[in-house]
Amino acid sequence: MDLRILGETKKNCLRKYRLISMYVLGIGRTKFGTTKKTLATLMYDAMLKALEDAKIRIRDINVAYVSNFGAALFENQVHLNSILAGLLPSYHIPIIRIEAACAAGGAAFYTAYNTIDKFEKILVIGVEKMSGLSNLQTTSNIASAGDVLLDQTHGLIFPGSYALCARQHMKKYGTTLDDMALVSLKNHKNANLNELSHFYHKNVSLEEIKASPMICSPLRLYDCCPISDGAVAVILSKEKKDDRSVEILASTLSTDSISLVQRRSLTSFLATKTAVKEAYQKADIKPSDIDIAEVHDCFTIAELIALEDLGFCKPGESKNMIRQNQTNIDGKIPVNTDGGLKADGHPIGATGLAQIFEIVTQLRGEAGSRQVGKAEIGLTHNIGGVGGTCVINILRM
Amino acid sequence: MDLRILGETKKNCLRKYRLISMYVLGIGRTKFGTTKKTLATLMYDAMLKALEDAKIRIRDINVAYVSNFGAALFENQVHLNSILAGLLPSYHIPIIRIEAACAAGGAAFYTAYNTIDKFEKILVIGVEKMSGLSNLQTTSNIASAGDVLLDQTHGLIFPGSYALCARQHMKKYGTTLDDMALVSLKNHKNANLNELSHFYHKNVSLEEIKASPMICSPLRLYDCCPISDGAVAVILSKEKKDDRSVEILASTLSTDSISLVQRRSLTSFLATKTAVKEAYQKADIKPSDIDIAEVHDCFTIAELIALEDLGFCKPGESKNMIRQNQTNIDGKIPVNTDGGLKADGHPIGATGLAQIFEIVTQLRGEAGSRQVGKAEIGLTHNIGGVGGTCVINILRM
Repeated sequence: MDLRILGETKKNCLRKYRLISMYVLGIGRTKFGTTKKTLATLMYDAMLKALEDAKIRIRDINVAYVSNFGAALFENQVHLNSILAGLLPSYHIPIIRIEAACAAGGAAFYTAYNTIDKFEKILVIGVEKMSGLSNLQTTSNIASAGDVLLDQTHGLIFPGSYALCARQHMKKYGTTLDDMALVSLKNHKNANLNELSHFYHKNVSLEEIKASPMICSPLRLYDCCPISDGAVAVILSKEKKDDRSVEILASTLSTDSISLVQRRSLTSFLATKTAVKEAYQKADIKPSDIDIAEVHDCFTIAELIALEDLGFCKPGESKNMIRQNQTNIDGKIPVNTDGGLKADGHPIGATGLAQIFEIVTQLRGEAGSRQVGKAEIGLTHNIGGVGGTCVINILRM
Repeated sequence: MDLRILGETKKNCLRKYRLISMYVLGIGRTKFGTTKKTLATLMYDAMLKALEDAKIRIRDINVAYVSNFGAALFENQVHLNSILAGLLPSYHIPIIRIEAACAAGGAAFYTAYNTIDKFEKILVIGVEKMSGLSNLQTTSNIASAGDVLLDQTHGLIFPGSYALCARQHMKKYGTTLDDMALVSLKNHKNANLNELSHFYHKNVSLEEIKASPMICSPLRLYDCCPISDGAVAVILSKEKKDDRSVEILASTLSTDSISLVQRRSLTSFLATKTAVKEAYQKADIKPSDIDIAEVHDCFTIAELIALEDLGFCKPGESKNMIRQNQTNIDGKIPVNTDGGLKADGHPIGATGLAQIFEIVTQLRGEAGSRQVGKAEIGLTHNIGGVGGTCVINILRM
């Protein structure tokens, strides 16, 4: 159905075609890093900032979604929807916890988006506390996002899975260790402009990255995201509130088998390709219309694969984008301007919403020293596991 | 708004008022108990039965929700949405995991209900594997549904929390240990008519119940539900398929603080009262219109409190209902005809959907030896924690 034949502007046509538009009214987040604050306090801090940003009261919220990956494993705590209810005495609103491994935040946003017809104002909070345990226990906890029978039992933890992808990408396309180092360098530089990032004020040189210890060949320490605590809150509504409200053009989620042994390709994720194809269709745009993107760089190779799967370049050509600085803040399409998972941090349940936070901040023109040039349309790309889940969101100012 | 003034029948009015009706097209479940089957196999078995029951193909499903409480703790496995995706090669449909402690199944159904405008056919699968660990580890895992700081640290596990509720109920209303024993007896009798139940063919006498060991005073062994494995699948659609389709009149979810120390009353749960009030309003019915109910009897006292909170009797009068056999299969309002959590079993993530399974089976008149008399409207009541979450569903044939 092409509504443009009725003589409407494209923007108005899109709005009518989607019938109900949806907006991000407010965003709030904590600093990412390590903290002694509780899950409840992290949620509260992020929520309060989002309410202040949206200029609404908590009593205006009709439903809430909490995204969290692993509090069961890190703190023996599930039932986070009830933990949040305890912060909202006497409201008794519906609250639901969503989990989709590292795409939990994106999945919660996607679910909220799909229930916008039912509720006036929706709160989405992502939270994670990961610091404080031993490396072994932390690694085991994160491995729970892989198949317990097909992956975990054989020792295939996530650095291993992404290392397999990196090796294949290098062999197939000539991507190099230095290309991955450049991704890390860019994201660390960006994080240094983001005072809420895990690695704010940590200067990292290309030499340091290249000299960092090998974690799982070919991935070195600086190819891997850190273990972070943090929370992010986002408030959604079908009513535009003011000029700072950011429109959601599309939200899509696709899935794939959990283990790499079940896949045909290690250099491309079908969940991403399926989700982003649907998102571009729904938003009625093409990859070149994206002005800025937040992609899931849990490992540097994941950012390179994402650039290709999202259609920003052809398969195998992401190395050229990073070599030519196309994804820098002043590049053709700035990617991970907040530092990404690599350097902003990856408090797992909060990550998908941190991406929304950054895109909204940039589209509003409120990103300060890391503000990109003219940006009208932004995209977020949030992955669970090694492409077992992918959530794509497209936002417009 | 009263549409009846337009001269429509009440049923048609209700349908118009809700704008879009919603139906359960198919149901499927495994036997509850202990099994060596994997989470994936349990999900597959339940899904296949639900598809067969609905007479549709898997390719007709547009979205799926997986409810699971504790695979992270029991099997070091999160990301169950991707595990399910692995059973559906090349479909890549959106799949999301929902958790709300023991109300996970209800919360997934509620979320599905709220997204029915977006998807033609929805699959909801609840699954849990709890057997095989030590009693200590199992108890610790289940305790994760309570507050790690307020409850767990002080040793307040769930038998303890519900024992506090029982003690208060006894003191305030004169409820006795024998009343709780009668709940257990009824539910075990019902389970003995349900070949898929955990305690099928386990004959339990009133004497045995009363003589069973004290777990946490005043709760004895037979006041407590067992540790079960199992899965249930339900298929929803806004299109009525045939005469076996069961209409959903309302689905509501309310929350409350997680710990009893944050509550004013131990003998009534505000989350239940809030959710059921909204459900009755949405369905435009009153408690006496309910012909059959599945309530959350993780402990026998929880069934008695539920009867009161749901408005089936006044506060403190549930003891009379059970003494007068009003909740028996041939009683005024049959409750937990499948055996309830107590005797059908409580594979946590599947429980809320097992309640739907039973109500649908009964409303269809397909419950065999445990079939109740004329039943048009049924209710399910699914609790997370000690009333931190409550989901109410009202179904009609």
